[in-house]
Amino acid sequence: MSVETPDLAFGEQKLLPAIAQDSTTKEVLMLAYVSEEAFERTRETGVAHYYSRSRDELWKKGGSSGHIQQVDEIRVDCDGDAILYIVDQEGGACHTGYESCFYRTADGEQVSEQVFDPDDVY
Amino acid sequence: MSVETPDLAFGEQKLLPAIAQDSTTKEVLMLAYVSEEAFERTRETGVAHYYSRSRDELWKKGGSSGHIQQVDEIRVDCDGDAILYIVDQEGGACHTGYESCFYRTADGEQVSEQVFDPDDVY
Repeated sequence: MSVETPDLAFGEQKLLPAIAQDSTTKEVLMLAYVSEEAFERTRETGVAHYYSRSRDELWKKGGSSGHIQQVDEIRVDCDGDAILYIVDQEGGACHTGYESCFYRTADGEQVSEQVFDPDDVY
Repeated sequence: MSVETPDLAFGEQKLLPAIAQDSTTKEVLMLAYVSEEAFERTRETGVAHYYSRSRDELWKKGGSSGHIQQVDEIRVDCDGDAILYIVDQEGGACHTGYESCFYRTADGEQVSEQVFDPDDVY
């Protein structure tokens, strides 16, 4: 069923938060930010792109580590100011080696698996 | 297993993005923002609180609609600048009546169920 095509609020904010969720396990893998260019690049290539706020540049996730995200589906929220990438994650999403960046509870309990050794990758 | 207790980056940004994920279906329900007060209130009460940027105030989710979120677990990301609430959602998360605010793909296909009529609730 088709509802209206979402308008995205890039105009006001330049960057929108984007959640990556694993298509198989449904684990939330990470939250990062996308520019309009990153969003369009993601749609064109089917591979997740973000905007690195620390490096101030377009960021192909996995460009250096090889841990790319193949994007199955892109969802947009009600207000058009948040994005959800549903992805097949190669390797682990987190630069620390965990499957998910959300590998800890607020109390410091580990809830995600370490799937690679960051010293081997970066 | 316990890893280090996460430090949260409220000091720099005041507000952090928080994802709500359904504990049963694992659907991503919404993305909103939390202040340190909202985060502490959530931990104290076990019910999701956010900070409303439009109303500029602490926001107990479901305070007017009754569609509260019981929080099963709070996760924090690697950088301490994003939060994940894993919740039992009463009713629907979205003010439009959908189960999830991410009820559309970027192409406008509907992917979530409308679970209440917003005219009956607000």
